[in-house]
Amino acid sequence: MALRVAVAGASGYAGGEVLRLLLGHPEVEIGALTGGSNAGARFGGLQPHLLPLADRVLEATTPEVLAGHDVVFLGLPHGQSAAVAEALGEDVLVVDCGADFRLKDAGTWERFYGSPHAGTWPYGLPELPGHRAALKGTKRIAVPGCYPTAVSLALFPAYAAKLVEPEAVIVAASGTSGAGKAVKAHLLGSEVMGSMSPYGVGGGHRHTPEMAQNLDPVAGEPVTVSFTPTLAPMPRGILATCSAKAKPGVTYEAVRRAYQEAFAGEQFVRLLPEGQWPQTSSVYGSNAALIQVALDEHAGRVIAISAIDNLVKGTAGGAVQSMNIALGLPEELGLPLNGVAP
Amino acid sequence: MALRVAVAGASGYAGGEVLRLLLGHPEVEIGALTGGSNAGARFGGLQPHLLPLADRVLEATTPEVLAGHDVVFLGLPHGQSAAVAEALGEDVLVVDCGADFRLKDAGTWERFYGSPHAGTWPYGLPELPGHRAALKGTKRIAVPGCYPTAVSLALFPAYAAKLVEPEAVIVAASGTSGAGKAVKAHLLGSEVMGSMSPYGVGGGHRHTPEMAQNLDPVAGEPVTVSFTPTLAPMPRGILATCSAKAKPGVTYEAVRRAYQEAFAGEQFVRLLPEGQWPQTSSVYGSNAALIQVALDEHAGRVIAISAIDNLVKGTAGGAVQSMNIALGLPEELGLPLNGVAP
Amino acid sequence: MALRVAVAGASGYAGGEVLRLLLGHPEVEIGALTGGSNAGARFGGLQPHLLPLADRVLEATTPEVLAGHDVVFLGLPHGQSAAVAEALGEDVLVVDCGADFRLKDAGTWERFYGSPHAGTWPYGLPELPGHRAALKGTKRIAVPGCYPTAVSLALFPAYAAKLVEPEAVIVAASGTSGAGKAVKAHLLGSEVMGSMSPYGVGGGHRHTPEMAQNLDPVAGEPVTVSFTPTLAPMPRGILATCSAKAKPGVTYEAVRRAYQEAFAGEQFVRLLPEGQWPQTSSVYGSNAALIQVALDEHAGRVIAISAIDNLVKGTAGGAVQSMNIALGLPEELGLPLNGVAP
Amino acid sequence: MALRVAVAGASGYAGGEVLRLLLGHPEVEIGALTGGSNAGARFGGLQPHLLPLADRVLEATTPEVLAGHDVVFLGLPHGQSAAVAEALGEDVLVVDCGADFRLKDAGTWERFYGSPHAGTWPYGLPELPGHRAALKGTKRIAVPGCYPTAVSLALFPAYAAKLVEPEAVIVAASGTSGAGKAVKAHLLGSEVMGSMSPYGVGGGHRHTPEMAQNLDPVAGEPVTVSFTPTLAPMPRGILATCSAKAKPGVTYEAVRRAYQEAFAGEQFVRLLPEGQWPQTSSVYGSNAALIQVALDEHAGRVIAISAIDNLVKGTAGGAVQSMNIALGLPEELGLPLNGVAP
Repeated sequence: MALRVAVAGASGYAGGEVLRLLLGHPEVEIGALTGGSNAGARFGGLQPHLLPLADRVLEATTPEVLAGHDVVFLGLPHGQSAAVAEALGEDVLVVDCGADFRLKDAGTWERFYGSPHAGTWPYGLPELPGHRAALKGTKRIAVPGCYPTAVSLALFPAYAAKLVEPEAVIVAASGTSGAGKAVKAHLLGSEVMGSMSPYGVGGGHRHTPEMAQNLDPVAGEPVTVSFTPTLAPMPRGILATCSAKAKPGVTYEAVRRAYQEAFAGEQFVRLLPEGQWPQTSSVYGSNAALIQVALDEHAGRVIAISAIDNLVKGTAGGAVQSMNIALGLPEELGLPLNGVAP
Repeated sequence: MALRVAVAGASGYAGGEVLRLLLGHPEVEIGALTGGSNAGARFGGLQPHLLPLADRVLEATTPEVLAGHDVVFLGLPHGQSAAVAEALGEDVLVVDCGADFRLKDAGTWERFYGSPHAGTWPYGLPELPGHRAALKGTKRIAVPGCYPTAVSLALFPAYAAKLVEPEAVIVAASGTSGAGKAVKAHLLGSEVMGSMSPYGVGGGHRHTPEMAQNLDPVAGEPVTVSFTPTLAPMPRGILATCSAKAKPGVTYEAVRRAYQEAFAGEQFVRLLPEGQWPQTSSVYGSNAALIQVALDEHAGRVIAISAIDNLVKGTAGGAVQSMNIALGLPEELGLPLNGVAP
Repeated sequence: MALRVAVAGASGYAGGEVLRLLLGHPEVEIGALTGGSNAGARFGGLQPHLLPLADRVLEATTPEVLAGHDVVFLGLPHGQSAAVAEALGEDVLVVDCGADFRLKDAGTWERFYGSPHAGTWPYGLPELPGHRAALKGTKRIAVPGCYPTAVSLALFPAYAAKLVEPEAVIVAASGTSGAGKAVKAHLLGSEVMGSMSPYGVGGGHRHTPEMAQNLDPVAGEPVTVSFTPTLAPMPRGILATCSAKAKPGVTYEAVRRAYQEAFAGEQFVRLLPEGQWPQTSSVYGSNAALIQVALDEHAGRVIAISAIDNLVKGTAGGAVQSMNIALGLPEELGLPLNGVAP
Repeated sequence: MALRVAVAGASGYAGGEVLRLLLGHPEVEIGALTGGSNAGARFGGLQPHLLPLADRVLEATTPEVLAGHDVVFLGLPHGQSAAVAEALGEDVLVVDCGADFRLKDAGTWERFYGSPHAGTWPYGLPELPGHRAALKGTKRIAVPGCYPTAVSLALFPAYAAKLVEPEAVIVAASGTSGAGKAVKAHLLGSEVMGSMSPYGVGGGHRHTPEMAQNLDPVAGEPVTVSFTPTLAPMPRGILATCSAKAKPGVTYEAVRRAYQEAFAGEQFVRLLPEGQWPQTSSVYGSNAALIQVALDEHAGRVIAISAIDNLVKGTAGGAVQSMNIALGLPEELGLPLNGVAP
C-alpha cells in the first residue's frame, strides 16, 4: 500500500526536487501539489522537467487540499510552516524543507530570522551523531540547511575525535539554485555566469548558528564558526572548504582514522581515497556527500572539504532520507547514489 | 535471475552513462568494465560520480574479459566494434554505441568515415517507424548518433504525413560531452565556456547521411539534409532546430495532428502543449525527447525543434531502451523520464 | 574640445556597454547618466564594472538633465525614444539603441510591435551597402537590432552577388544579455546555465522584418526570412547560422570572391581564412564581426556564419561606430578590435 | 618613438593577454611573437581573438628572433626564463610572467618547484609596500603569481596596521585559464562546467610561500598561510576569501581606516563602499582589484575579499603596469580599468 504524499510549494526548486525523487520512490504515490501565486497553473509549465506530472494542476496551499495524505513536504517561505503543520494534525508526517524548526535557541532564531521562534523539530541529518535515532518514528522533521549539511558532515568527525580547536573557518561555494527561484536582479544568468561573488560575509548568514548548533555537542564545547558563502556560476552543488587549527600532536593518521570511523556504515557519505578530492559534478543529482581531509603540517590546520548537491543531500534528498527513517523504510529508497556527470 | 552485463569503453562518456543507467536497472548485474589505456586503474578515479563502482578496477578489453556476459555494451573508437562483436559470439546481445554498424550504404560509410564498411545492424531508434519491430529479439544493435536521434524524431512526422518538401535545413547545438573525453585544445573549459562555435559546416559531419537514411524511407523519396552542428557552453544536451518548406495547402492543424499521431503511445517522446518550447535543461539526465512544431506561414516552412540529452536518449538511454526491447523487457526499465533541473 | 555625451538608460546592459566604450573614446567626455526607477542611486552599485563612474549618481531621464550635450545615446524601452529626441532638438546627435526608428514600413512596425510607428532614422550598419553614406552628418541614428546585425552581415554578400535564392533560413544563438536586464524567471542563472532554449519560433520575432528590410534592396527582390532565435548559456555573443539555396551553377570560388569583395576595406568585419570558423569567444567585448562561408554542394546551399558580441557590434559598438561616422571622426575611435579571450 | 616589444610564449594564455593589452598601449610596437611546438603556425589560428595580429606567424623562441627589442615578455614553462634572459643582455627589459624569479629563498624554491633556484628579480606588485620603488628603472621584473596578487592585496593592509594575528586562512576560486592552455583531461569543458573542485589542498600549492614572502615583511613577523585553491566554472577571475584572527580590541573602524589608507592614491586597487562586495565579473578583462573587508565580531576574525582577473591584474596587466613603472611611463598606460560585463 503506497504512501500518499503531498508537496506544498511544489513550483519551487526544493519542492521540484522532492518530487523528482519521489517519482522514483517505490513506496510513494504523489498526491496534491500546491503553491502560492501560481496556483491554478498547469504543472508542466512550472516544472517542465517533471514529465509524469506535466498534466497536473497546481492547487492552492490550503488545509483542505493537503488533507488526506500520509506525508506532507513543505517548501514554503520562512514563517509559514507552523500554521500548515498544525492544521495537518499529529498523525501526518510533516517534513519541513524550510528553516522554521531547525534552531533550538529561540533568541538565536529571532536574532537571525527576525521573527518569533516556532519551535524545534527532529533534525534531518541522520549521519550526525545522535540524530538518526531521533528521526525514527517522528511525525515532524526539520530538514537541515544546505550549507550546514555540507559543513557539519565535513567537520564533525574532527570535533568528535577532539582533533581540532573550536574555531572553524569555512568558505563555501554554492550553485545558484541555493538562492531559490525568486526573481532577483543579481541572480540573472547574465550576472551569474562567469562570476564568483560572496554574500552574507562577516557572520551574518543564517546558516552560521545552525552549523554551531550541530558541532557544539559533538565537540563538547562551543564552536565558533566563521562562515563565508559565495555564489558560483553553476546551477547546483556546494563545495565547502572547512578548516580548524589542529590540536597539538595530532597526526595525519589520526585524522584519517577519525573520518573513516565516522562514516563507516554510512551509505551516502564517502571519505574519498587519498589523493582524490571531491568535486561538485560527481554528486550532481545525487544524495551522496563526498569528503576528503588533509593535515597541513606547516600551517597546523586540518582541512576538510565536502561536496554535495545542495538540492539533493542539501535539501530534498536529506528530506526523503529522513522520511524513510521516520517511517521505518529502508533509508536509501528513492535516493540516487550516482551523480549525473559529466 | 539478473542479466550479466559488461561495458567495453567504460571510462568514456558513453560507457559511463550506460553504467549510470544500468545501476538503476532492476534486471541487470554489472559485470566487467573494460578500457584501453586506462586498464588497471581504479574505476573511482575515472568515473568519480559512479560511487557503487568506485572500488572496481578497469580491465583490458579482451575476449576473455568480456566472455560470460548476457549483454555487452561497446563504447569503442570507430572501427573496433566488429572484431570484438565477432569474438563474443552470436548468443550475446551486443549493443554498439559507436557508428560502425549504423549506415546501410557501404559507399556512404566509406566516404564519411574513410574505412571499410563493417555491416549494418538493427538501428536502435524504436520510435522511428518500422524500427521497434526489428529490435525485438535481435542480438546486435547499432545505437544511433546523438544528432540523428534528435533530428529524426523532430522531422519524421512531417515527412510521414507528406507535409514538407524533401530538403531539410538543420542547425543543432550540442553540449561538449558529445565530442567525447579525448583531450583536445578546443574542448578545454577555458575555450568552451562563454562560446558558441560551429564545426563540420557544409555537409561534412558524419551524422548527415545517417539523418537522410532515417528520413528517406519515411518520406518515400530522398531527403536532402543541410546540417550545421554547433558546440554550446554546456556539458550535455542537444537542441535541434529543423525546418523544411511546407507543401502547398498545409495547415497548422494538419501539422499538429501529424505530430500528435506520430508520438501517440510513446513513453519517451513528448509533443509539448502549444506555447511551450523544448529546452535542454528539461531533459538533463533523462531519456525523454521533447518536441514542438510550428508553421511559419510567412516563410512557408514547418519548424520542428527537439531537445534531448545527447548522452541519454542520444546514446546510453537509447542503447538501454533498445536492449530492453531486444530482450523482451518492459521498454522503460532503468530509464529516467525526469530531467535533473534546474 | 571633447564631445559632451549623455546616456539615457545608463543602468541597462546597452547603456552600460555604451559607457564602457565611451570611457575609452579619446574625443568624448561623459555627461549625464540617466535612468528610470533607479534614479538617485549610486552608479557604482548599478554598473560595478565601470569603476571610473562609480561615484556618479543616476539622474532621472528628463529634458533638463539631458540638455547641453552634443550627443545623447538612448537605451530606453520601446516607444519612449521619440519624445525624448524631440525635446533634445535638431542640433543634438541622438543615437537610439532601441527599435523605434529601425523599420521603414509603418504597417510592419505596428504588426510586430503593436504600437504606432514613430518614423525611420538612418540605420547604423555602415557595412551594409549604401548605409555609411547616409550616416555622415546625420543627427539621428537608429542602431540596428543585434540579430539583424549578425544576419545581415553574414548574408548580404551572397545576395549582392546574386548567388542565392530569396529564401533565407536562419538559426541564431544569443547570450542572455540580449534579453536585457529586466528580471524574468526564465532568465535566472539557475534556469539558463546548462540549457539551450528557443523562443519566438515560427516568424514572430521582431527582428525578422528588420532582416528582410536589410536584405531586400541588396537582393533586388523580396527576401523571405525564416528566423529561429535561441538562448545560449553565456552572457554575451551571437552565433548566426544562415543559409539559402544556391542559384544554379554557383561555385565555391564565386561565393568566396563575393565575400572577400564585400568586406574589403572594412575594419570590423573579417572573412576568416578557409578552414577557420567564427566563435563568439573571439569577439567577446570587441566590435568585430567574424564571418565564414561554405557551399554545401550536396544540399545545394550556401551557409554563412557570423559571430558578434551582441552588446558591442550588435548594439553599443555599432552605435559608437555610427556616431563616429556621423560626426566625421575616424570610424574606429573607441572601438576594440580584440576580443577578451579565453 | 615606440618601444619595440617581443612576446615569447605568445600562443599561451599569459602571452595572449599581454598582447591584447599591448595592442592598446600607445607607446608600444609589437615585434616578434615566439612559441614552442606551434612555431611556424599562423597566429590567427592560435589566438583568434587578436585580429590585428591574425596574419602574423609564430616564430621559434631563439635569441636571434628575440634580439633587437626594447622589452621582452616571457610566458615560458618553469625553468626556461633564465637562459633566455641571459641571452637578451642587460639592456633589454625582461618581464617574466613565470615563477622562476619570484621567490627569494632558494630552499623554499627548491622544495616547491623541485629545480635549482634561478635567482630573484624585482617583484611586479607595485601596490605592495616598498615594491613600486624597486621597479623604477629595473631591467628585470618577476611578475607575481595570480593567487599571491589577489591575496597579498587583500591582506597586507591588515598586517601593515597590526590588526590581525600572523595566521591567515585563504580559500580562493579561480577561473580555468589560471591552469593554462596545456591540454589535461580534468580541464575539459565537460568536466569543468557545472563543477567546483579543490586542488593542491593542505599546503602544497606553489603560490603558498609567495604569499608568505609578501606578507612577512609587512607584518614584521612570519605569517603562516593556509591556502586552498579551487577551480571554478568560469574562464577568468579569482575571488580570494582571506581571514585572520583579529588582535584584541580591534574595531571595525580601525579595519576600514587601515584599508582606506593602504589603497589611497592607487589607481587599480579599490576598496568598495560598505555594503558592496567584489565579484569577479566586475573585473573581467580589467586591471582592477576590488577589495572589501569585514570584522566578524562573533568569530573574532577580519575577513578580506578580493576579486581580480587572473590574466590581467593577476598576470599580464601586472606585467604591463610594472613595465610602465620600470620605463618611467605613466603607470596606467594600456591598462583597462573597466571590466567587460555582463
